[in-house]
Amino acid sequence: MFEAAELGRKLTREDYEQELPALRAGLLEAQRGLERANVPVIVLFSGADGSGKSESVQRLYEWLDARGLETNAFGALSDEERERPPYWRFWRTLPPAGRIGMFLGSWYTEPLVRRAYGALTRAELDREMGRVAFFEQMLVDGGALVFKFWLHLSKKGQRKRLVTLEKSAETAWRVSPLEWKHYKLYARFIKASEQILRSTDTGQAPWFVVEAEDERYRELTIGRTLLEGMRRRLLGKAGTSRPKAPVSAPLPELPSSAEARVTVLDRVDLERQMPEKEYRRRLLRLQAKAHRLVRAASEKKISAVAVFVGWDAAGKGGAIRRLTAPMDPRFYRIISVAAPTDEEKVHHYLWRFWRHLPRAGRVTVYDRSWYGRVLVERVEGFATESEWRRAYLEINEFEDQLADAEVVIAKFWLHISPEEQLRRFEDRKATPYKQHKITDEDWRNRAKWGAYHEAVNEMVVRTSTRRAPWTLVAGNDKRLARIQVLETFTRRLEKAL
Amino acid sequence: MFEAAELGRKLTREDYEQELPALRAGLLEAQRGLERANVPVIVLFSGADGSGKSESVQRLYEWLDARGLETNAFGALSDEERERPPYWRFWRTLPPAGRIGMFLGSWYTEPLVRRAYGALTRAELDREMGRVAFFEQMLVDGGALVFKFWLHLSKKGQRKRLVTLEKSAETAWRVSPLEWKHYKLYARFIKASEQILRSTDTGQAPWFVVEAEDERYRELTIGRTLLEGMRRRLLGKAGTSRPKAPVSAPLPELPSSAEARVTVLDRVDLERQMPEKEYRRRLLRLQAKAHRLVRAASEKKISAVAVFVGWDAAGKGGAIRRLTAPMDPRFYRIISVAAPTDEEKVHHYLWRFWRHLPRAGRVTVYDRSWYGRVLVERVEGFATESEWRRAYLEINEFEDQLADAEVVIAKFWLHISPEEQLRRFEDRKATPYKQHKITDEDWRNRAKWGAYHEAVNEMVVRTSTRRAPWTLVAGNDKRLARIQVLETFTRRLEKAL
Repeated sequence: MFEAAELGRKLTREDYEQELPALRAGLLEAQRGLERANVPVIVLFSGADGSGKSESVQRLYEWLDARGLETNAFGALSDEERERPPYWRFWRTLPPAGRIGMFLGSWYTEPLVRRAYGALTRAELDREMGRVAFFEQMLVDGGALVFKFWLHLSKKGQRKRLVTLEKSAETAWRVSPLEWKHYKLYARFIKASEQILRSTDTGQAPWFVVEAEDERYRELTIGRTLLEGMRRRLLGKAGTSRPKAPVSAPLPELPSSAEARVTVLDRVDLERQMPEKEYRRRLLRLQAKAHRLVRAASEKKISAVAVFVGWDAAGKGGAIRRLTAPMDPRFYRIISVAAPTDEEKVHHYLWRFWRHLPRAGRVTVYDRSWYGRVLVERVEGFATESEWRRAYLEINEFEDQLADAEVVIAKFWLHISPEEQLRRFEDRKATPYKQHKITDEDWRNRAKWGAYHEAVNEMVVRTSTRRAPWTLVAGNDKRLARIQVLETFTRRLEKAL
Repeated sequence: MFEAAELGRKLTREDYEQELPALRAGLLEAQRGLERANVPVIVLFSGADGSGKSESVQRLYEWLDARGLETNAFGALSDEERERPPYWRFWRTLPPAGRIGMFLGSWYTEPLVRRAYGALTRAELDREMGRVAFFEQMLVDGGALVFKFWLHLSKKGQRKRLVTLEKSAETAWRVSPLEWKHYKLYARFIKASEQILRSTDTGQAPWFVVEAEDERYRELTIGRTLLEGMRRRLLGKAGTSRPKAPVSAPLPELPSSAEARVTVLDRVDLERQMPEKEYRRRLLRLQAKAHRLVRAASEKKISAVAVFVGWDAAGKGGAIRRLTAPMDPRFYRIISVAAPTDEEKVHHYLWRFWRHLPRAGRVTVYDRSWYGRVLVERVEGFATESEWRRAYLEINEFEDQLADAEVVIAKFWLHISPEEQLRRFEDRKATPYKQHKITDEDWRNRAKWGAYHEAVNEMVVRTSTRRAPWTLVAGNDKRLARIQVLETFTRRLEKAL
């Protein structure tokens, strides 16, 4: 979930300064518009110590009209607060219609810290998040526009930041032993954070995970996300203070320079290759291992699900064949997800995937999957925006149920470059026995590369969890791709055994 | 929550037979309509053993076109089911679009039984219900029409029913030692059931608690509820299989005879009176007790909330004065809920009530309350239907948070008959110093007695919980009413001390 916020995104000063005037003008205009439309705006800042939460708020005070802003931080409970139900302190700070309330810390803070310290069980955190989700739903139903930012630092990044703060006389006070203690608990905080984000990333109050290491990138991303969300609300619902179906906050547009636009997909190294000889050797070894593990899993009644999605001609079929070749056919099943059958069409979109879940000790390989909802259905408009937006949580909940039942989950996105795809398309066209594999639809899909790229990126960002992580497979070299798939699958299976 | 299903509602054979032809014709027509509109219909039957769940399903097989129906019961897990995540068995049984799936037992059954047996904690049940609520939301979002019936029997009624079943050779097999064991755990089942209903009574998939003792009443109520819900869906959304905002299932119309239409309000005995002398004596005693208890609660830091709603001229003011007279003014505060202030208007409707919650050891008396949302705002159309329907869960969640924080909650509905109200109105008109108390609005409200009656009844049914029960005060005799208020309040406070 946080992989996408460790890409080293940054912004040059020039780019930043070039963007700024339009952004600031836009923010002021949107703020005035929402004030007139009587929309309360709630902006939460969460994330690691030192990730720049308060700096971000300060920046927004510069960019927006400060008279319409209010900021809330939650330290130790006051006497007044201690004597009332826990949410009293949050209710009293909610911004009224037409104003923007910024929250440094929020209803997420205490559950997160308590979970990281081990004072809450996983189930208790789930229950707490159920309460949070209901609370936010109520605010959204009441007409509020909710933004939730999670400012992310890598462990290294956090250390660097704390050291920098300590060095300067002006900021040293901000780093206490508590911050270092939290730094030491980094892995536990990340794990708890992921559970929190996963279960509260709703279509109407989604999380925006922002890479926080570069200040300019962080600030501009926050500003742009706010601007886009505010504008969308104004466009869709201008004048209504209580819309029937509130527009959900949108994804941020990324600043324009290459370093700022880098996505998880761009980080896949497509240059690497694997010599034929090494491939043969490793393939044999991995297939032998897969054979052994699948048999052992069958005995131990541990089941597994492997999901394959990817660009057209990225080599899904070949990778699946290499994976299943060593498996006893009684132990696995490949589900090819093409157009739904008549029977599937009249059910919920997840029904067709539930029905094929493997029995204990078996493997189901999904050739395409439930991710169609947030890929092809999103891009082609087969699903409405609210349908695909809420699908992230539906899918996460589905996979969470699999993980609860101890099903091993491996999800593969087979990635290739557009150039490589073109080469393969033309090769297919030119080779008689491959011609059936290339259709007009493939060319049409190719023309929408950009839209698919964005959808894939958001899919990975919102659904890659510790219990069901995405593996981005470098597919330009087919040998490399197949080895990566086998290695990942066997590793995950081995871990579960 | 179940008080409203122990009213002894019944239906004569004639009434039943008179209703039947129109009901059956309507059901068949609605079924065909939903089939054409491709709407999947999910009908859950829950409730006590012997409450007639399977009989009700059988009746629906007579009334509806059986070719469009399917029924699912969930016994012990099959091998197939045991080897997959728990919800697999439910997914596989969901009805396809255009068909009606009836469920004897459901995703509620196991959590209920496990909680009653003590195998789940309260928090674990909450978490499980969070999962259920998400699941149902997903079904509704996917276009399904969901009915949830809870067939209720009083403890005595259940016993009677089990004995009857045992006596007949044909049905004796249905009563095993397990049924008697559950009967012995009646109180625990009811408590767990209430928690379940409270937390899953959403606007879009609401519960219908049906009094199950009289077979004709039970069947006709179920049939009518289904018919009304199906019709509303067809009217609002005919032709769309995936409505953006599904119409929520409506309340049942009650069969027309008096015995079938009786509500919780009708069960309030308005005839009783209290002689002046007895009143004086008890008033003094209760006020002395209230004085003592409020002081003790203050020392123990236990706070309390008293909520007063009722018909115009039902005597709210007088009852509140008698209750607060013995309290030290430092310890309590009366919040008169009139039109919201400017400041309150620009916040969520619950905000104005949260802000006045008492500190530890104090009492807040709300003269009118958050129930305005489901009373005046519902009847006058100030809130949209989806707003007031979802308010039941919002209110229950609010009061649950109070109860979690150990705030004592007393809720009073001051009830009078329409004749008594008229007498008081006319008295006010005729008495110079009372004239200010009667306005045109009072007369307008009076004209909507029926609509308010229905709203009050549903309010009590959906929001009277063990932790925050409603007290229906017999208000025709003011003395009686005041004593009842004082008695209830002191009893609840005493229990918490």
